[in-house]
Amino acid sequence: MPFTFENHHNVVFGDCDPAGIVYYPNIYRWMDGTFQRFLQQYGGHAAVCEHLGAVGLGLMETHAKYRRPLKDGDALTIRMEITEWSAKSYRLIHRGYVGDDLAFEGTEVRALFEHRDGRMRAGEVSRLKTYLESRSEP
Amino acid sequence: MPFTFENHHNVVFGDCDPAGIVYYPNIYRWMDGTFQRFLQQYGGHAAVCEHLGAVGLGLMETHAKYRRPLKDGDALTIRMEITEWSAKSYRLIHRGYVGDDLAFEGTEVRALFEHRDGRMRAGEVSRLKTYLESRSEP
Amino acid sequence: MPFTFENHHNVVFGDCDPAGIVYYPNIYRWMDGTFQRFLQQYGGHAAVCEHLGAVGLGLMETHAKYRRPLKDGDALTIRMEITEWSAKSYRLIHRGYVGDDLAFEGTEVRALFEHRDGRMRAGEVSRLKTYLESRSEP
Amino acid sequence: MPFTFENHHNVVFGDCDPAGIVYYPNIYRWMDGTFQRFLQQYGGHAAVCEHLGAVGLGLMETHAKYRRPLKDGDALTIRMEITEWSAKSYRLIHRGYVGDDLAFEGTEVRALFEHRDGRMRAGEVSRLKTYLESRSEP
Repeated sequence: MPFTFENHHNVVFGDCDPAGIVYYPNIYRWMDGTFQRFLQQYGGHAAVCEHLGAVGLGLMETHAKYRRPLKDGDALTIRMEITEWSAKSYRLIHRGYVGDDLAFEGTEVRALFEHRDGRMRAGEVSRLKTYLESRSEP
Repeated sequence: MPFTFENHHNVVFGDCDPAGIVYYPNIYRWMDGTFQRFLQQYGGHAAVCEHLGAVGLGLMETHAKYRRPLKDGDALTIRMEITEWSAKSYRLIHRGYVGDDLAFEGTEVRALFEHRDGRMRAGEVSRLKTYLESRSEP
Repeated sequence: MPFTFENHHNVVFGDCDPAGIVYYPNIYRWMDGTFQRFLQQYGGHAAVCEHLGAVGLGLMETHAKYRRPLKDGDALTIRMEITEWSAKSYRLIHRGYVGDDLAFEGTEVRALFEHRDGRMRAGEVSRLKTYLESRSEP
Repeated sequence: MPFTFENHHNVVFGDCDPAGIVYYPNIYRWMDGTFQRFLQQYGGHAAVCEHLGAVGLGLMETHAKYRRPLKDGDALTIRMEITEWSAKSYRLIHRGYVGDDLAFEGTEVRALFEHRDGRMRAGEVSRLKTYLESRSEP
């Protein structure tokens, strides 16, 4: 069963740099924000972590390809999907569209961080998957 | 005739600081973003400036009072109003609500910056007001 | 005895907006960052809060006047001073300079937030002052 | 001849998220900022673009691996190197260290964007390389 979410952002002047196009770290903010809004359906990042005894659902790796510049006034739609579950990480794809045009395509590889033996470690992610599945067929 | 605009933002994890509440510079980003979305109704910041021969609709002064902490998951509504026109500046009030609760109240004092005599100066803002009025009764 | 701190930031392209000047919420990021670096001398925000049994040293009110546009390449110096202690808040002034030119002048009114009776409240700030004083004359 | 640059950032509270570690889009801001400071040695982004008749030195692709969480108080050093020149792009590696510990490793693939035939296109980057080389042996 796929985990997907669709998010929207109206690009504004302040998202852009002196070349007049979106400053690229903002694209990562919108990717992360889309995942966080997905989690809000399950109570939000803090509630999910508390349920799982985790510290955070942080990042191991991120990547993006920029296909088309984004500008002030663009109505951006971001479509997220969790595409892969490994033992200690899971992979999300985020695609940003303005109308039918693909503006960017990004990947987040996330973990489930726990405190163990006095340091932060990546734990098994299967229980996150199980938890999300148990909540998504009400 | 009042110039008003209403904008929305779903607060996410990444908007917040280690205390778990919104990092306050983001509140100014949302205030500015609300004004920019207001301008998008008139073609956007670049088009309005080009029409008026201006460089930018930048800031002289900003202020905010924080009434209630904002958190991951809050559905924020920002209501903007231009409340005062002076010779070389105009004043905007932004009020941020979560439901009926006022979360912040902010002010922006903006100018109409022009290049003149080799430097950037604040010009007369009456022509911005006239331009907005001429476009808002279609 | 005055509490002061001096911080530096080299303004870069990505700090600026399509008009080529610094996007103003970044100025508040640098003001807050200057206060946080001041706190790092005392162990940092988390350590100071833990010592005082507080949740955070958050904001009640902020303000800034912009005197001169900042641009890519400007070497910015921010001079902070705590200028006033009230019962439940304290006031900081931040002045940003490029060389001898004042670029902005800002104010932060901060509190000492505590959890009490199930909600977050502003507590007495005298013990923060006492703590900082006790540590600054080693 | 290698093009390298070393940049520094003191991580502050506001760079971090509710899990208390750096919010990852900020890492991309610091990577971009390191490249922009590299360019400041040659007059800065705007001057280099003007010299080359280009619109911007924007991104085609970015990537980062996070090796170790960054926190409030960490003194971060970012070492950048341009590692590869292709026909229409060049590749930069950014490595972020706290002391000897590698905190992140990132890549930016950048282009030289030009306006041509009414749209923005990636042009030949050899003239950027030639320009930088001509300036780096004074």
